Amino acid sequence: MSWIYFFDLCGTAVFALTGALAAGRHRMDPFGVTVLAAVTAVGGGTMRDAIIGATPVFWLRDPNYMIVILATVLFTLIFIRRPRKVPQYTLPIADALGLALFTVIGAQKALSLGLNGMSAVIMGLITGVGGGIIRDVLCRQIPMVLRTEIYATASILGGIAYTVSLKLGMDSKTAMWLSMLSALVLRLAAIRWHLSLPAFDLKTKRE
Amino acid sequence: MSWIYFFDLCGTAVFALTGALAAGRHRMDPFGVTVLAAVTAVGGGTMRDAIIGATPVFWLRDPNYMIVILATVLFTLIFIRRPRKVPQYTLPIADALGLALFTVIGAQKALSLGLNGMSAVIMGLITGVGGGIIRDVLCRQIPMVLRTEIYATASILGGIAYTVSLKLGMDSKTAMWLSMLSALVLRLAAIRWHLSLPAFDLKTKRE
Amino acid sequence: MSWIYFFDLCGTAVFALTGALAAGRHRMDPFGVTVLAAVTAVGGGTMRDAIIGATPVFWLRDPNYMIVILATVLFTLIFIRRPRKVPQYTLPIADALGLALFTVIGAQKALSLGLNGMSAVIMGLITGVGGGIIRDVLCRQIPMVLRTEIYATASILGGIAYTVSLKLGMDSKTAMWLSMLSALVLRLAAIRWHLSLPAFDLKTKRE
Repeated sequence: MSWIYFFDLCGTAVFALTGALAAGRHRMDPFGVTVLAAVTAVGGGTMRDAIIGATPVFWLRDPNYMIVILATVLFTLIFIRRPRKVPQYTLPIADALGLALFTVIGAQKALSLGLNGMSAVIMGLITGVGGGIIRDVLCRQIPMVLRTEIYATASILGGIAYTVSLKLGMDSKTAMWLSMLSALVLRLAAIRWHLSLPAFDLKTKRE
Repeated sequence: MSWIYFFDLCGTAVFALTGALAAGRHRMDPFGVTVLAAVTAVGGGTMRDAIIGATPVFWLRDPNYMIVILATVLFTLIFIRRPRKVPQYTLPIADALGLALFTVIGAQKALSLGLNGMSAVIMGLITGVGGGIIRDVLCRQIPMVLRTEIYATASILGGIAYTVSLKLGMDSKTAMWLSMLSALVLRLAAIRWHLSLPAFDLKTKRE
Repeated sequence: MSWIYFFDLCGTAVFALTGALAAGRHRMDPFGVTVLAAVTAVGGGTMRDAIIGATPVFWLRDPNYMIVILATVLFTLIFIRRPRKVPQYTLPIADALGLALFTVIGAQKALSLGLNGMSAVIMGLITGVGGGIIRDVLCRQIPMVLRTEIYATASILGGIAYTVSLKLGMDSKTAMWLSMLSALVLRLAAIRWHLSLPAFDLKTKRE
């Protein structure tokens, strides 16, 4: 299953990057940056494994994840020093890529453990959005996933696409590419054109 | 144990409702609403199961929980559209009901796994307040459970009442009703008359 | 292993104290204080055990932890009533002590379960900073560990010192004292002289 593993490490790197960039906006020291990058990168998968009961969780059994995170943090600290050097959409696009990758990885892991389709979609969602939620909570922001245009929606679409493709008999690699692309395209389109579903609005002075 | 199961699904629905209403006050899209409703409804029980080691957690083994949450979200999105239609105390009262139900469910589950009385009270507390804490943290508020009049107190009372009633030889169903009512009445009384225990106050400029 | 156990209960008490003092700055009622103290004291170790898969988690198998927390809360509520009575550095120093103790406990537990050195350092970090992170998130602050001078750094130093000392053949008790002291001294020095590593700063108007 080397494809899945390669995607997993790529997703780890891009989410670690989003965590490190967020840390840089809060003036953290190098070890604080590392902690936030690691939490963002493996937070979702850690929640997934703890919920499924796949313990010790994945990054305790395979040191490559931590090595990828450390390398990403070093890269970020060395090469991304001046604010102007980071193009405006770097963080949202890296985040979208991580979202698409991790969603499919999470759904794949759930199915491989014999869980049903609905659970697989939810596990994809947790893997995809969990790390970003922890990152945003630690930086004291309402999580991007809850507030932003078509974010959870893109992850759920990717999870459903993957599960249904496999049910329809598609081979694993094609299903993976297709579902990742569908989540990624939807999320990037939402970023580019500020697409959003109609909001549920109860804003009042109540409570 | 159909009584317990029925109460559990009712608690899931009311906590999902409080999550959806909180989402509506932050203008989230339908999938964001669903995520916040689900996290509020199963967050406490998920923490409980991960801490006890009862994995895969309960809602992965029984799809009815997610179905109840989806139905509650649909109901909320369709029928509760205009702010004025939600009476002032809807959220606190639904929350109090969920608190009482989940406290007893959590304590019951801990006892059924052979944990001692103190652990059962704590597990009741985690099940009862965990989801609401996550909901409030995600909406960037100091959790209601920590800040509000007699909230954790009501859950702890319910857990102690349940554990002691069983120890005294009461039958399971009566103990359940009695302890749920005691937690619910205490919490509702606290809401109605703004009851509170004397606060521990160290408010200073320190740090 | 009575030394480790004794240190663990001491760390539990000092972290419970930091939680109770934080609760006092947000005017919580006695049960809210207890919840925040407990979450701060056992939050890191609970995360560690859930991630490793050592469930039911430690405080469910040994009631002494909860007894220490309740005693600490009672002590705090009774003896620390007026703000002026708490010297300025009480909270940071207690926090530094808990950090050093829990870091070594966590690394020790990971090694005793056969995990490798890097995982032991990370488990020490999670045990040491996890509870404080939850405490700060619940009080709606960016966690001290991420924002403060040389905090995660001190924990990582302690974990590395412990792991390397054991690898070099030092006996368990000496390694424990040495590594705890190294983390504690570094953290206290950082508090006293406001030491910090150069921050990673990307503060811009982006996003």
